[in-house]
Amino acid sequence: MTAKRLAHLESSFIRDILALTQKPEIISFAGGLPDPQLFPSDDLATALSHLMQEEPSTIYQYGETQGIPALRHWIADNLSDHPQQPDNILITAGAQQGLDLIARCLLNPGDKVLIEAPSYLGAIQTFTASEAELISVEMTSEGPDLDKLETILAEQQITAFYCIPNFQNPTGISYSRKTRLALAELLQRHEVWVIEDDPYGALRYRGEALPSLQSLLPDQTLYLGSFSKIVSPGLRIGWVTAPEQLAAALSKMKQVTDLHTSTLSQQLLLHYLRQDKLMPHITKLRTVYGERLDAMQTALQDNLPKEISASSPEGGMFLWLELPQTIDSMELVYPAIEQGVAFVPGIAFYTGEGKASNCLRLNFTNTDTKGIEQGIVRLAQVLNRTA
Amino acid sequence: MTAKRLAHLESSFIRDILALTQKPEIISFAGGLPDPQLFPSDDLATALSHLMQEEPSTIYQYGETQGIPALRHWIADNLSDHPQQPDNILITAGAQQGLDLIARCLLNPGDKVLIEAPSYLGAIQTFTASEAELISVEMTSEGPDLDKLETILAEQQITAFYCIPNFQNPTGISYSRKTRLALAELLQRHEVWVIEDDPYGALRYRGEALPSLQSLLPDQTLYLGSFSKIVSPGLRIGWVTAPEQLAAALSKMKQVTDLHTSTLSQQLLLHYLRQDKLMPHITKLRTVYGERLDAMQTALQDNLPKEISASSPEGGMFLWLELPQTIDSMELVYPAIEQGVAFVPGIAFYTGEGKASNCLRLNFTNTDTKGIEQGIVRLAQVLNRTA
Repeated sequence: MTAKRLAHLESSFIRDILALTQKPEIISFAGGLPDPQLFPSDDLATALSHLMQEEPSTIYQYGETQGIPALRHWIADNLSDHPQQPDNILITAGAQQGLDLIARCLLNPGDKVLIEAPSYLGAIQTFTASEAELISVEMTSEGPDLDKLETILAEQQITAFYCIPNFQNPTGISYSRKTRLALAELLQRHEVWVIEDDPYGALRYRGEALPSLQSLLPDQTLYLGSFSKIVSPGLRIGWVTAPEQLAAALSKMKQVTDLHTSTLSQQLLLHYLRQDKLMPHITKLRTVYGERLDAMQTALQDNLPKEISASSPEGGMFLWLELPQTIDSMELVYPAIEQGVAFVPGIAFYTGEGKASNCLRLNFTNTDTKGIEQGIVRLAQVLNRTA
Repeated sequence: MTAKRLAHLESSFIRDILALTQKPEIISFAGGLPDPQLFPSDDLATALSHLMQEEPSTIYQYGETQGIPALRHWIADNLSDHPQQPDNILITAGAQQGLDLIARCLLNPGDKVLIEAPSYLGAIQTFTASEAELISVEMTSEGPDLDKLETILAEQQITAFYCIPNFQNPTGISYSRKTRLALAELLQRHEVWVIEDDPYGALRYRGEALPSLQSLLPDQTLYLGSFSKIVSPGLRIGWVTAPEQLAAALSKMKQVTDLHTSTLSQQLLLHYLRQDKLMPHITKLRTVYGERLDAMQTALQDNLPKEISASSPEGGMFLWLELPQTIDSMELVYPAIEQGVAFVPGIAFYTGEGKASNCLRLNFTNTDTKGIEQGIVRLAQVLNRTA
């Protein structure tokens, strides 16, 4: 009765957990939300006031499929670490739509997509909906295991490599400079498309910025950017930069998909960006979220059994815990909720093979430092009871 | 290098024509735009002011995939001609996205979709991107030719029938009551999904409202609604109502596609709708657009050669001209633009087979009555020179 691609779409397990964690007495490290208290609401309100002075057709009429030219210029000038043509930028309804458009433009059913294990659940779902075959490569603390990656590329025909080089979701790991350079060489040699997802890149709290894979491999890389984590996810504005011939194809697919992204959202964002307040706002986010990351790491050190190891993110929104092999984090979900704390079990971020059932993801951006300390104490009580 | 489905996506011919008709000296009947002067800008500005009093999280945070519940309730209560469950409504980024989601949920490559000939270009492109096979059934003045439709259903396995029963794009034709009833019986007997696209239904200038196909065949119909023609297309808000099991599938596919529709756009629309000014606004649109349709029909009668016949729309945005068989409307496009008037040649609205090259589409909503009279005089000059 319905299309085959539907069979691959499971209801999101994360959504089910999130529904359980809405209660105010639960400290939730489960979601992936920015803190709404930190949205630049006052400056957005000012931008809205200015926007209302515009001609109605500027805000309410149909617009260009590729997105408002001034917005694409702003992105090219301000949010790329290498020279970028505004014509090669497509405005999308969040990076999630960019990912979906890329999957539909690049992949035929059965094509193989290489992903990090673990990886972003929304990407796994999108590639699965495209009926791609997902191949996983394990993560190390410096990025994907390059030896294993090289073996996979030598043995199999891989169409694209999907990756989150900065502060990965779910592990918080960033690719080292060495990994980036080696990876670019490897992927160029094997002529594999790179789908570089970078929603967290601007949220760096420590260390130095590293070159994007697109800056190293511009002819093979499709880069996904997003305003969701640095301005507002509700506006649903992201972008894709792609080599010229693919940018045109993505734009055609976008037209079929929804004609164009909300003119109102795009114009509001553009008016906000023209205030030149994004960079100070990002600085503020870095300070507050960085303090929360510190608080979580300190609380983990102070309260958790020594045999539990945590990733060491330099930015982003997530931290990854590895429990002893004997513990299944899924079995801790409901005891933790009873204790008043929530997380996402690691297994949600793997495809079929090589699932690590002893891991879990913690979000540290949507809880203040006091809540983080309290939540980690509660989590430690559950873990200590189990260990 | 790229997915096969890309091969089917031609650059939109209409977009190319539209680019040529941006000059102010051209009277354009080519686009499919509502008149921006008629957007309810003042009431939307009031709604925006109220919206800015809300909690930032209401406007700027991630939202539910299915759409804001209050908005779905409002649609169920006010914009359906039969009882509707808000849970079976999915908010989409315009009806175009609804169409794309439906295609992805219903169709496997090679599945046959029956469409009207001619039909909406955006639908043709979406079904083509889904690698469906398109089968056409000719239009009469009362809807699709039922004899031909019955033969097709008897001889071929058709998965879905896509149709625009009210004031069709591009012909302006509406299905008669008799056609609707007969069609419902036929489609039920052959177990064919109905994709009922209804962006213009509220824009009726003459005659009585007729039952939707969904009201006649609720278990088999997916209904596409839109605020683009009655409020603003730039907000990109439409909806799909579907039988329960399909509504859930569409929602999952929506999550993969872009997580959810712009919270800002949805909230602004909801605040506007709560002012209870949509119905008076639609009344105003009916008056103004109805006068423009009258003006165009009168001008056509007064100026055009008798051998040219025009459709008689009772609403919507388009009117369809049929020229003598010997005339190819495509060859008139550039002479007309030189004369200062633009239209879309009919051939743009057909798939491979049975193209009628002697027809053309005229939009009457985005030009005032004086401009319409002047534009038709110019068009008549081109046609008289050719005939």
